Amino acid sequence: MEDTQENIQFQLTNELIEKVESLVVSNNNKELKLLLNEFHHADIAEILDELDFEDALYLIKLLDSETTSDVLMELSEDNREKVLKNLSAKEIAEEIEELDTDDAADIISELPENRQDEVISNIEDDEHREEIRELLEYNEDSAGGLMAKELVKVYETWTVAGCLRRIRAQAKEVTRVHSIYVVNKEEKLIGRLSLKDLIVAKNEQKIADIAKENVDYVNVNDDAEDVAKVMAKYDLEAIPVVDNNQALVGRITIDDIVDVLKEEAEKDYQLAAGITGDVEADDSIIELTRARLPWLFLGLVGGVGAFIIMEGFQKAFDTYKVLFFFTPLIAAMAGNVGVQSSAIIVQGLANDDVKGSVNNRLIKEMLLAALNGLILAIFLLLFVWAWEQDFRTSLAISVSLVAVIIVAGLIGTFIPLFLDKRGIDPAIATGPFITTSNDILGILLYFWIAKLILGI
Amino acid sequence: MEDTQENIQFQLTNELIEKVESLVVSNNNKELKLLLNEFHHADIAEILDELDFEDALYLIKLLDSETTSDVLMELSEDNREKVLKNLSAKEIAEEIEELDTDDAADIISELPENRQDEVISNIEDDEHREEIRELLEYNEDSAGGLMAKELVKVYETWTVAGCLRRIRAQAKEVTRVHSIYVVNKEEKLIGRLSLKDLIVAKNEQKIADIAKENVDYVNVNDDAEDVAKVMAKYDLEAIPVVDNNQALVGRITIDDIVDVLKEEAEKDYQLAAGITGDVEADDSIIELTRARLPWLFLGLVGGVGAFIIMEGFQKAFDTYKVLFFFTPLIAAMAGNVGVQSSAIIVQGLANDDVKGSVNNRLIKEMLLAALNGLILAIFLLLFVWAWEQDFRTSLAISVSLVAVIIVAGLIGTFIPLFLDKRGIDPAIATGPFITTSNDILGILLYFWIAKLILGI
Repeated sequence: MEDTQENIQFQLTNELIEKVESLVVSNNNKELKLLLNEFHHADIAEILDELDFEDALYLIKLLDSETTSDVLMELSEDNREKVLKNLSAKEIAEEIEELDTDDAADIISELPENRQDEVISNIEDDEHREEIRELLEYNEDSAGGLMAKELVKVYETWTVAGCLRRIRAQAKEVTRVHSIYVVNKEEKLIGRLSLKDLIVAKNEQKIADIAKENVDYVNVNDDAEDVAKVMAKYDLEAIPVVDNNQALVGRITIDDIVDVLKEEAEKDYQLAAGITGDVEADDSIIELTRARLPWLFLGLVGGVGAFIIMEGFQKAFDTYKVLFFFTPLIAAMAGNVGVQSSAIIVQGLANDDVKGSVNNRLIKEMLLAALNGLILAIFLLLFVWAWEQDFRTSLAISVSLVAVIIVAGLIGTFIPLFLDKRGIDPAIATGPFITTSNDILGILLYFWIAKLILGI
Repeated sequence: MEDTQENIQFQLTNELIEKVESLVVSNNNKELKLLLNEFHHADIAEILDELDFEDALYLIKLLDSETTSDVLMELSEDNREKVLKNLSAKEIAEEIEELDTDDAADIISELPENRQDEVISNIEDDEHREEIRELLEYNEDSAGGLMAKELVKVYETWTVAGCLRRIRAQAKEVTRVHSIYVVNKEEKLIGRLSLKDLIVAKNEQKIADIAKENVDYVNVNDDAEDVAKVMAKYDLEAIPVVDNNQALVGRITIDDIVDVLKEEAEKDYQLAAGITGDVEADDSIIELTRARLPWLFLGLVGGVGAFIIMEGFQKAFDTYKVLFFFTPLIAAMAGNVGVQSSAIIVQGLANDDVKGSVNNRLIKEMLLAALNGLILAIFLLLFVWAWEQDFRTSLAISVSLVAVIIVAGLIGTFIPLFLDKRGIDPAIATGPFITTSNDILGILLYFWIAKLILGI
């Protein structure tokens, strides 16, 4: 149990890294193997990601082939790319033989096009090679791109005893048996069984008699996100994948879905913060600039728009200069309200719980924004009145604030709903996009209404 | 297969809702049962969530007890609360008998304190009752709060054949057998087995000989989020839970972890958008106001701060009024850069891939912000110069912009790292918190630097 305790509480310490480095320097392969053997392959990958590349490559070549392939899968994408560059097509093919077909296809798809064929033709097992070739043809964001070919399949005509005997061979190749899929002689999926059902059943029963006919499945072309939704909703741990003829072609397991959900959540979070393109804190400054600069540029254009509006109103408000000092407040409130309402809608759309008509949704947001705006405007009115000793100006500013908040809320609600109807990912509507458009519109509206109230 | 196809492609249409409503009105129980029987309990819950409460309650009482309990688990929290209010303690206890212990404990914990004991004492099965009582004692955000008591446990001294015989009984109560946990005579967890291992093994082998000793587990007091991280990292579908004596006390399955991950992602997303307290698009205006107003109020205070700063600089910049027209731009850029850098850090912290020293991190962000700031400042310089025909003013504005962007980036990087070190959730540092503090600081810095350059 000692090992295990370390396993689950694995801590990547500087001491550990230094120990590994000094063992590499002294070429102490025996010690290294003993040390790394203690760790889960996901932990070894974490260690490797911290080492200099030369040291990491040394360890990769030292580990046995099965561990290496698992570690490769867990390495950061950048490091994996570098490692693969330093391995021959034959060496990569050997690693790939150890992996399940879905992981194998993922790794091959990361290689440059010209190396892909070379690596595939070096795979010795004919079946494995053909299965990987098949998987590479699917879009990576589809069910086909997620599925593995490894599964346990039985024919409806088999008996329980015969079935148990024959699946022993199949099961050895499948890491985890979630369900046993039942097909008819045309390979069409017609039901499922659990190992438990099989163990509990009597030896002479026919599979057709004990199979559950009610089996959830997805089509090989279904969107990965939709597959994730279905599996999360129905608490499925594996789902079979069929082609357009209903023939069983693969299986998707929940661990892949956990990755899809995490990636999706991270993408949306970054979009809301004005970052595109799946970057991480440890990416290079150039990569981070590419992900961040476009949104900042949008903000710059919005700021220039606000400047032009304010300059246009300069003459009109010559005696009410104080109005200009509230433009950052107006812009901030318009931005915040817009982001709040769009975030709620984007999240609701993702969870399929935005129901009812668009009009009802807009009326609700209007009431909500009006309530929030009114409360905030009263505070602002009292403050400006007390500070400037001028009721009319403070009234003009506060009434404008309410109007700006209502319009910002409506825009924040409407834009994601509109994008979603058009089939565009509404998540791009949060963050800088909403804040920038609301900044400009809010300031314009603010001066218009103030002008009206002050009778200029 | 017809049923299944509908299952997976379930669409909640108005026609379906109307059909159900009209069947309820005409008390056509037979038709209703036939209709609802077609659907998965998660789909029935979606239908019920759309009905008037009276109609939903009618259906709840119509469905058989096993379906009702499953549907109850999937209902929205508000509706479940209302339904439970309308059921007697005895009726609730009957539903709870049908549920796994973890779901049962979740439902009971949602009841008002005074009803909890009443419901528990109405549970007829003694073992189920005691197990639920035990689960209710754990913090809901701990491993104990997530785990179920249902699991398959074998003793190391059993043989494969004896084991198969005995686990048939245990397995019937467990919906999904992921692993069979091996304990010694003190109930301490010492290994695991898969059903597959058992089937592949020879009948006369001892469990101790075929069990895998390397079993991942968590402590009953571990944080739910940490459990989720461990299960996602090691691709586990179930993990055993032990108490402080290493005794096996429960099991957590991946479907519960999927829920933890989804909730966590939604909470972070809302925090970044300035929304606290787990609200949904369909919550009441009062609930939504309570979640949104505090952050808006923070924005208001920030805006008032910006106003006071600008008024303070009013005299100094009497001949450079144009500077005031760029404050929304400065505030927007400071806010955007701050949110971008804090989002990257918050996400990196969540994924444990922010390594190295805080200083290196700040130096990197400074370089990144300087690069982005420089590019943006050149555009702004050219625009203001061309528009205002005044090089010195445009230089002052642009240089200030670079400084503001660098400081905003540093603050966005530093605050989440600082909060994390202090054990505070860094996610609260994104969104309005960062934008508001950066707005004020950015505008202050902007005027200071402009003053310096213009020699006022």
